[in-house]
Order: sequence, then structure tokens, then C-alpha cells
Amino acid sequence: MLNKTLVITAALMLGGQFTASAAERQAGISPWGADDEIGRLNLMTESSRDSILRRIAGGKVYDLSVEYFIGMPSWQAAGDPHYRIWMTHTPHGTVIDDPLNTGGEMNRHVSYTGAAVSMYTHMGTHIDGLAHFGLNGEIWNGFSAQEHLGDRGWRVAGVENMPPIVARGVMLDVAAAKGVAMLPDGYRITRTDLEASLLRQRVDLRQGDVVLIRTGRMRVFDDTSAYMGNPPGLGLAAARFLVEESGAMIVGADNLSLEAFPSELASDYVPLHTYLLAEQGAPIIELAWLEDLARDKVYEFAFVAAPLKLRGADAAPLRPVAIPLR
Amino acid sequence: MLNKTLVITAALMLGGQFTASAAERQAGISPWGADDEIGRLNLMTESSRDSILRRIAGGKVYDLSVEYFIGMPSWQAAGDPHYRIWMTHTPHGTVIDDPLNTGGEMNRHVSYTGAAVSMYTHMGTHIDGLAHFGLNGEIWNGFSAQEHLGDRGWRVAGVENMPPIVARGVMLDVAAAKGVAMLPDGYRITRTDLEASLLRQRVDLRQGDVVLIRTGRMRVFDDTSAYMGNPPGLGLAAARFLVEESGAMIVGADNLSLEAFPSELASDYVPLHTYLLAEQGAPIIELAWLEDLARDKVYEFAFVAAPLKLRGADAAPLRPVAIPLR
Amino acid sequence: MLNKTLVITAALMLGGQFTASAAERQAGISPWGADDEIGRLNLMTESSRDSILRRIAGGKVYDLSVEYFIGMPSWQAAGDPHYRIWMTHTPHGTVIDDPLNTGGEMNRHVSYTGAAVSMYTHMGTHIDGLAHFGLNGEIWNGFSAQEHLGDRGWRVAGVENMPPIVARGVMLDVAAAKGVAMLPDGYRITRTDLEASLLRQRVDLRQGDVVLIRTGRMRVFDDTSAYMGNPPGLGLAAARFLVEESGAMIVGADNLSLEAFPSELASDYVPLHTYLLAEQGAPIIELAWLEDLARDKVYEFAFVAAPLKLRGADAAPLRPVAIPLR
Amino acid sequence: MLNKTLVITAALMLGGQFTASAAERQAGISPWGADDEIGRLNLMTESSRDSILRRIAGGKVYDLSVEYFIGMPSWQAAGDPHYRIWMTHTPHGTVIDDPLNTGGEMNRHVSYTGAAVSMYTHMGTHIDGLAHFGLNGEIWNGFSAQEHLGDRGWRVAGVENMPPIVARGVMLDVAAAKGVAMLPDGYRITRTDLEASLLRQRVDLRQGDVVLIRTGRMRVFDDTSAYMGNPPGLGLAAARFLVEESGAMIVGADNLSLEAFPSELASDYVPLHTYLLAEQGAPIIELAWLEDLARDKVYEFAFVAAPLKLRGADAAPLRPVAIPLR
Repeated sequence: MLNKTLVITAALMLGGQFTASAAERQAGISPWGADDEIGRLNLMTESSRDSILRRIAGGKVYDLSVEYFIGMPSWQAAGDPHYRIWMTHTPHGTVIDDPLNTGGEMNRHVSYTGAAVSMYTHMGTHIDGLAHFGLNGEIWNGFSAQEHLGDRGWRVAGVENMPPIVARGVMLDVAAAKGVAMLPDGYRITRTDLEASLLRQRVDLRQGDVVLIRTGRMRVFDDTSAYMGNPPGLGLAAARFLVEESGAMIVGADNLSLEAFPSELASDYVPLHTYLLAEQGAPIIELAWLEDLARDKVYEFAFVAAPLKLRGADAAPLRPVAIPLR
Repeated sequence: MLNKTLVITAALMLGGQFTASAAERQAGISPWGADDEIGRLNLMTESSRDSILRRIAGGKVYDLSVEYFIGMPSWQAAGDPHYRIWMTHTPHGTVIDDPLNTGGEMNRHVSYTGAAVSMYTHMGTHIDGLAHFGLNGEIWNGFSAQEHLGDRGWRVAGVENMPPIVARGVMLDVAAAKGVAMLPDGYRITRTDLEASLLRQRVDLRQGDVVLIRTGRMRVFDDTSAYMGNPPGLGLAAARFLVEESGAMIVGADNLSLEAFPSELASDYVPLHTYLLAEQGAPIIELAWLEDLARDKVYEFAFVAAPLKLRGADAAPLRPVAIPLR
Repeated sequence: MLNKTLVITAALMLGGQFTASAAERQAGISPWGADDEIGRLNLMTESSRDSILRRIAGGKVYDLSVEYFIGMPSWQAAGDPHYRIWMTHTPHGTVIDDPLNTGGEMNRHVSYTGAAVSMYTHMGTHIDGLAHFGLNGEIWNGFSAQEHLGDRGWRVAGVENMPPIVARGVMLDVAAAKGVAMLPDGYRITRTDLEASLLRQRVDLRQGDVVLIRTGRMRVFDDTSAYMGNPPGLGLAAARFLVEESGAMIVGADNLSLEAFPSELASDYVPLHTYLLAEQGAPIIELAWLEDLARDKVYEFAFVAAPLKLRGADAAPLRPVAIPLR
Repeated sequence: MLNKTLVITAALMLGGQFTASAAERQAGISPWGADDEIGRLNLMTESSRDSILRRIAGGKVYDLSVEYFIGMPSWQAAGDPHYRIWMTHTPHGTVIDDPLNTGGEMNRHVSYTGAAVSMYTHMGTHIDGLAHFGLNGEIWNGFSAQEHLGDRGWRVAGVENMPPIVARGVMLDVAAAKGVAMLPDGYRITRTDLEASLLRQRVDLRQGDVVLIRTGRMRVFDDTSAYMGNPPGLGLAAARFLVEESGAMIVGADNLSLEAFPSELASDYVPLHTYLLAEQGAPIIELAWLEDLARDKVYEFAFVAAPLKLRGADAAPLRPVAIPLR
């Protein structure tokens, strides 16, 4: 298993030229076989998990997720649903409605609260699955929307296929490396920025890592318009460095939505999404809460997260935890 | 810290008589203080997490959650929302709608898929928070709906307060102990059943445990009406044994919704919910997938899970993982 | 205009043979032109409305719609959303949440209630638009899903194109004609039944009519499972009689969903829907409340209704009224 | 009946002083009895409907409603849901999903489209019911939220109680009377403005009228931010003139949401809503499409509309029509 993985990774890392032409770009074909629906998550093995879990240093746990609430920042440009929560049962409302026909006395004694939620799947701390963006009608491994996408999601490569993620996590505090609390609006992180961060943090990247980029944007998470407007993000060459040269399994950040805008490619308004998801089979984590890690200068950790298994979905909320290593 | 916890637990364990009268029952007051919003999750400490994480035996990880899909089993008796997923963007639909005004060529090249979901929060593998059921208008620690419940949820004791859960997990395979694949409809698990399971599995319970009860009901999860109709569940004395005598922090099961029906108490249609949540401050996990643990006879494990931080909500989906111990 | 309409109708009435073979059936091409998106609603003109409005006999108005409520009957076989209503603001909740930052005093004085709803568009008293069912990927007038259906509905023939409906309405009380309070489960109404009803009621049918068939099913509307299970409905030959021989513009009924099941055609599970909507361009009204008309023996009336203009939708709720004629 | 109505109206018109103090204001008690749930809709009788219907001049019908679509203007300040529409079934998706287990051939032949919607009830052309705003926890006729409001809406005075509305309609084109295409942002319409409009249009107001005020705001309906930002609206004295002196049954306008902001009353951020709904029992229509009436100078008409019967809701969408009179 180990050998096979190494060979595959070498192949991946050979990479190609920076493909700027729409005509030349297409969904990647998986080195893990025609049935592969999880892409680079194949880099995770029992052995890789064991190697990270055995390095856990203690019982301190960092929570890498934000809360869900009405008014929270989310991407609305294409008309997607906002986060909603509403009460389907309240103690007093149950007395009035008596929905279970148990009668007033029972309802006054047994105080029932129930809530329901609705949301776009790309909301709060979440992971983009491989079906989120494709090229020319095909997603990772050549699965086509025409053949595999129904009214309830994808019949292949949905996020329910993602295994729980237990891997080495590395947080690159680019904001700190640049000497700022928060990268400025629209700043596009370069490969050089990443290298400087690695050097400053004295940490390396390894195959199978979950790499989380801190822009500092979470400083203004409570101000939705400040958070959403023209965020800083990762550049395409920097993303290629992370995946093709450094072996990252997942790339994430604390902003929405990883990229900086406008796009570096005239033919593609979200080139990092198509590059990572469709060409490389690498999931993306967005809206990660990295402030506590940054405060404590925790740059390397066991990353443990499990996306909700929303069958057929192209993304899922998740609440990752980071556990420092020896 | 350790001492304080022990004392607190002793107090909890002294317990009281079985309080069958509605008049006598009321929400528990927290031994962790007037501001406590998380109840027995206070039993979890950096030290308790460390002690379990250091016993992890390798890289094998068990996924304890089910998938979310249209038609999945859920509790509908009181008219709560079913699970829904729908596509807000598809590669072809984007070509037709052009929601970002990028034009047809761009939309044919960049293939966008987006999904949205809505659900009752008590759906799929999930955790009931302390606000889910109260007594006489009050939840755990005496917080009242009148004072603390708005149209968007509870201002106190919402699930967003729950820390990530890293604890010792114990799975009690009651079905196996009874020699059946699945407990019969309506079967109510007794304290004796639990003791027999513990003996058979040669495992003990300890303070702070996440105890998961296997009824075997997941065998019919794919048949919604079979799964939902009159499930087997835990009895009240058995629940008291787990919390007050054995120290359980969280009690869970593979059924919906932990209890057996009809209730053992004439005054309360869900006495385990009010007992665990309101009287004891103990969260409940439902719809846990325990089949793989049962198959491999894994009875003790590191339990790692993080509820989605739905602000103000009384429950949240979560995808727990179990990692075997040395 | 009148002449043109007559000619068109004659053409429509020439009809064809009963086309039972899937291979032979296809979406109808509109006699009203390549751009036509409303089908037989073209039969309605200023003149036709005038002729019915001038016959109004007084100020009595019949309400032909049912209420929307949680638990109401709706078609769930294909996993569509149930009706939901929830409160986004309540007087007391507003005091707790203060969503507009107006402060507690203001919120106690100004008592705000807001509700939100969600529903499948085929719920309660509603009208099926021409996009609801097509044949071989095409709807009425040959519009194809491939070319015209986006993620937010049809770009053509959506219900927002339907004009307000003011027309002669005729209610055929088939249940009464058969001497029963309610047609039995699964009963399929024949052409002979319709002719007997017309004779009994001494009413004729005319071009442009809204014809509403009473099965009596509304007697059990409050019992969702009784209402939904195996309803009586209209047969295909009877529908052809109404449209092709009698000139009906819209065909409706008090059941869900007009047809009787199982289908008369092996190749089509909803042949009345495809016949009326796709072949004839005739909208369908379902779940009409006809009990008051039946009680008062009002068989002919001005029918006034205006579907909600849900852009791109294939159906819309509406609340029709019937006003008796001289 | 007529006499009683006249007496009641006289009582209503005696009115009181302008009550600016929060302490003095409270929900009105209905002159139509302790059970009254519809307020001024009681002014509508069979006789009143007859008197307007018999004046209908021909078959011309004006549509007074806007379309529902993703991105449409709606009031978001308090975090209410936007309008959403999504496809639950598409012809191609049905082939992929086969939700009815009919098989691919059937699904390719029978092309199924289904849509679902969700919305705040105060969206698009809609009517505010009497439960929408109250004073001091009570709505019209003294019904209290404490006693009558459950988790699924009000048990009294919900919009499902509203009868179909058939009444004399009068459109007051205030923008035209002021010589502008559209009233400026924040302009507050005075009683003098209304009187000038009446004079210019040579129309009077009568008891039981539906009075619709044109601000011209619909000119910018397609530009959501232009439509929503600081709309012109009706002043409180003008509203009192309409109801208490002129006998209006319903007051409406083409803006959202009738009023101008900021409020004229320091103690009440929506004084027209509380005045009309809670004090006077007069429903409010918002977002009415009056452009066609204005273009054709149609100022008096039969107003026919029927709110969707959303049980317990405080508002409902409706699609009114206007039919010119002799």
C-alpha cells in the first residue's frame, strides 16, 4: 500500500505546465482507478492515520469551526440560500398547539423545544467535495453531470463517500508572516508567501497533509459585509505548490472562498476550485477558524474532522478539531 | 480540578429516588455553577481527553454515522420537517440561468454544482442538547423558556456551547447479549440487560464515558417504516444506572429516539429525555451507526465527535468516529 | 379574433385517434404560434370575459380553495416537500431576540408576528401549468427541457405567464349523479358519467369553460391518509370528451391529482397529465373545494382565479372564487 | 344588515385624537363582536359585492401583482427568508433518480417537472393580516399572543379567515398628482396629497373601499436595492384620513411596506402597521402593481383578490385583479 501511494504521488507531482487555456483544461483522471470518487483522500491510510495519532501530545483540543446563525456571512452572488433556523416546537407553543394530542397538562410539564435549519452546503466551516466544480461538464475522474447528476445530487463522488479525515494538519499563518493582523482586501497569496511562512514557522509540508492558510480574515467574521467583500485569498501558483510539490491532500483557509478575486484566468472565474477539485481531486476547506491556533502558535497538529454524509451533495459542513503533536 | 470533579460526581451519584410524580420533578440545578450551559460535558477535561488519546491503538477509524437522504427515517409524529436536499446550481442549469452573468461559454467550461439542505435538527446521527426537553418550562440549570428562548433558539444552553467531544466510548451490544440480531419491537432494555452486556463484553464503565447502546435497529435502517415503527429502547432504570451509578457523560443508541414507547411514566411521554437532559444535564446521541463496531467486537474506543455549532439550537447533527484503544 | 378562435378550436376538436402508443405521442404544437406559452388559456379573450362577467347574478361568492396547514394532504410518493409554516417573529420572541435593535421597551409595545412557508407547488388548491408534464423531454409547443429548463425553473411556459382567469365555470357533480356522497376509491369517471351529470344538471359545456369535476373526495380531506389513498379520478376518454369535443379550457377536480390510478396506459403513469398539459395545452386544477357549490346546486358560475406568479414554476397555488350567474 | 354597518362605521369614524403616546395605545376592540377575527373585512357584504359587480364595464382585467423570483425585493432587516424556488423533479433528473421506480424508458417518455418554493409571507404582492402587528402583546380585538399564538401560527385571526375580497377599488396616483414619475426616497404622503389626488382624479372614497396608493416605486422594482432603500410611503394622518374619515376597508400601496421611514412616532417603528392592523382592524396590501392602471388612468374598479389560506399566518400572497367599472 505504501509503495503504491508513493508511486501515485510521484506521478501527481510531476504535474504539468500552468494550463491557462480553457481548451486545454479538463477534469483529472484518477490514478486510483476508474471507480475512484474521493481523489486525494486516497492518500489517507490506516498507516498515515496511525502515524499522526501516535504523535498526539496531550488533551488540548482546538475547535476550528465557526457558529451558524441568521445573518452569518455566506456567498450570495448566485442567489444561494442563507442560513436559517426556526423553532418547530417551543415549550409554550406546544401548550397552544398540542401537536401530539397529549393535552395541556402534559405539555406544561414536558417542555419540548425543536429547531429546524436550512442552508446552502457551502456555509460556515465546510468542505467542498469533488463534485462542486468540474470542467466542461465533467468532475474529477471524468464523471459527467449528464450521466450522474440527478435532482437530489450526484450519484457518484458525493460527500457521503468521504471517509472521516484524520491527518497531519499544518496551519500557515500568512498574515503573521506578512506582519499584519489580516491580509488586505483582495491580496493574492503567492508561493513565496507560503515559503516564507513555512520558514518562519519552522514547519515542513508532507504528503497527505491538510494545509490551512490563515489570512486573518476571521478577525471581521462578525461583520458580514466586511468579511464577504473582496477577501484576500490564495493564488493559483501557490495552490499548485501546495498540491503538486508539497503533497497536500486538502487545502483550506479561513476566508470565503479560498481564492482571491478577480480570477487569474480569463476563462475561469474560480480557477482554484476547478484546479483543486476537478484537476487534482483535492477537497477544499473554507471558513476555518484558525485564530486560536495562531494565538498559541500551533502550526502542526492532528487534524480530525468528519463531513456530514449528505448523500449526493457537493459540499458538507464539518467541525474540525486540531490536537497538538509531540 | 480532578478533586472537584470527583466530589461533584459523588454528589450526582447519590441521586435520589425514582421520581415518578410530575409534581416532584423539575429541571436539575448544575453543580458546575449558575452559568453552566453544558451539564455533564463538564466531566470532560484536558486531562480526561489526554488519558483516552494516549491509549489509541492505531490508525483504524470507525464511522458511527448514517447518511442523509430524501426518505431517510425521521420522527414525524409532531409534524417536523423531513430531510430535503436540492440543487441550487447544476452544470447545465448554470448554462441556462447564467446566474453570475458570466456568459454561456464560461458556464459550459466551469461546471458549477451547488446543493442546499433543510432538516429538523434531530435527524440522522445527532446529539440532543440540553435545551431539547425541559420540565415545567425550565431546562437544565433552571433556564426558563420565558426568559431565554427567542424565535431563533435559546440564548443559553444552545448546542454551539458544546465543546468537541473527545472521551472514552463504550458500546454495549445488548442485542448480541440477548442473542438476537435486533431487539424486538418495543423491547425496553433493563439494567440487568446492561449488566449482562458489560459482563459478556468484559468492559467496565467509568465516569465521563460516552455510552452507546446497540439495539440492532440499524439492520432495518433502509426500510424507513420498519425502522421507525415501535423501536426497542432504553428503560428509565437502565438510564439511571448508566448516569448515576456508572458516571456516563453522554448516553446514546442506534435507534430513534433512545426510549421505548409507550412511556413508563403516565405524566411524561419522553421520560428518558427529560431525565437525561433536564434532570441530569446529559446529552443524548441518537441514530448512531454501531454495526461495524459490533461486527468487529470493538467495545471500548476513543470517541471523537463535534456537533455542528448551530447557535441556539437544541440539537445538532454530528459524525462521530471511534478509534480502538490499546 | 372571434373567428380565429373558432377556427383554431375546430382544428383542436378534429383531434385524432386515441394514441395509446408511447412511440406515437409527443408534445402538441400550438395553433397559437411558435411563441405560445399558455396553450388553451388563449381561448380566453376580453370578449369571453365580458360575456361571463355581464351575467353575474349578485354578490354571493363561493370560495373554492382549501387551507394550507402542517399535515395537509399532499403527494409524497416522489419525495416532494410537505407544507411547512414557521414563525420568524413572535411578539415574545422579538423581546428576547431584538432583531431590529430597537430595545426591549419597543419590542414589548410593538408586537411583531411574521411567518414563513415552504411547499411543493402542487399543494392545496392549485393549478398545474404546461411545464409540469411533457413527453420525450418536450413540453407543450415543443419547448425542450434541454434548452429551456434552468435550476430556477423554465425560461418559457412558467406559470407567471398565465393571465388571471375569468371564465365560465361549470361544476359537474359526478358523485351526485351516481347517487353517492363520494365516488369509491379508484373509481375512474367515464364519458358516460359526464354526460349523465350534464343531463342531470341541465347544463351544457362551451368553448373556454373551466370544468370542475366533483368526486366528493373532499368529504375526507381532514383525514390525510383517507384523502390520499387510491382516489377516484377522471378517465382518459372522459378528459378527451371535455377538451376535444366540449371545448374545455381548463379541467379540474376536487381530488389529488385528477387521474385515477393505476394508469390506463402502460407507457405512461400519468396519462391525463401528459394528455392535457403536453398534448392539449390545457392547465389542470386540483384540490378544488366544490362542496359548497354542490350543496347549493350551483353548476354554472363566473370562475375567477389568479395563480401566484412564481417565475419559471410548473404549478402555482391559487384561490378561485365562483360567482353565480343569471 | 345595512343599518348595522352604518352605525358601526359611524362609530369608527368618530375616531379619537391622534394617539402618540405608547402608554395610551392598545389593540382595538371590534365593533363586530368578541369573536371577530377579520376586522374591517366585515364591511364587505353580499350587498356590497353585488353593488360593485353589477357595475363592471367589460372584459378588461388588470393584473395587480408582481412575479416571484430569486433576488426579488423583500424586507431583510430582521433576517427573514428570501424567496426561493428549486426543482424537485426535472425531466432529465428523473431519468437519473427514477424516484417512482418506473424505470428509464418511462422516465424518458414522461417528462416530469416539479418545483418547490419557500418564502416569508410578506413577499411579492401580499396582504398583511390582523395578526401581523399588535400592541402590548395583543392583536386586533384583544387576542393575545400568550393565549393564541402557537408554533404554527395564530389560532385566531389568521389569514385563512379572510373571505375572498370583492370590493370597490380606488387607485390614488399620488406620484402623478405630484407631477413626478416616482415619489422621492423617503417622501411621506400627506392627507393633502391624497385630497389633491382625489380631486385630480375626480373620484371619491366610500365605505368599504380598497384604496391603493401609487408612489411610482414599481418603476425600479427590477433593481432590488433601489426599490428597497428608503422608500416613499404613507403618513399616519393620511392613513387616518383614509380609514376614519373615508371608510377604507383595506389600504394598500405599490411600495414595501406602505410606511415611510423613520417613523413619525418615537415609541413605534411601524406606526401605520399598528394603527391599521391593531387599532383599526384594516388589512394592508403591499407591493401592488399599479403601473398599468396608472398608464390607462383607471382609478375606480372592481377589486377581486383572494389571499392564500395559510392557516394561522399573519400575511398571505395574493394576486389581485382590477376590472374597470361603468
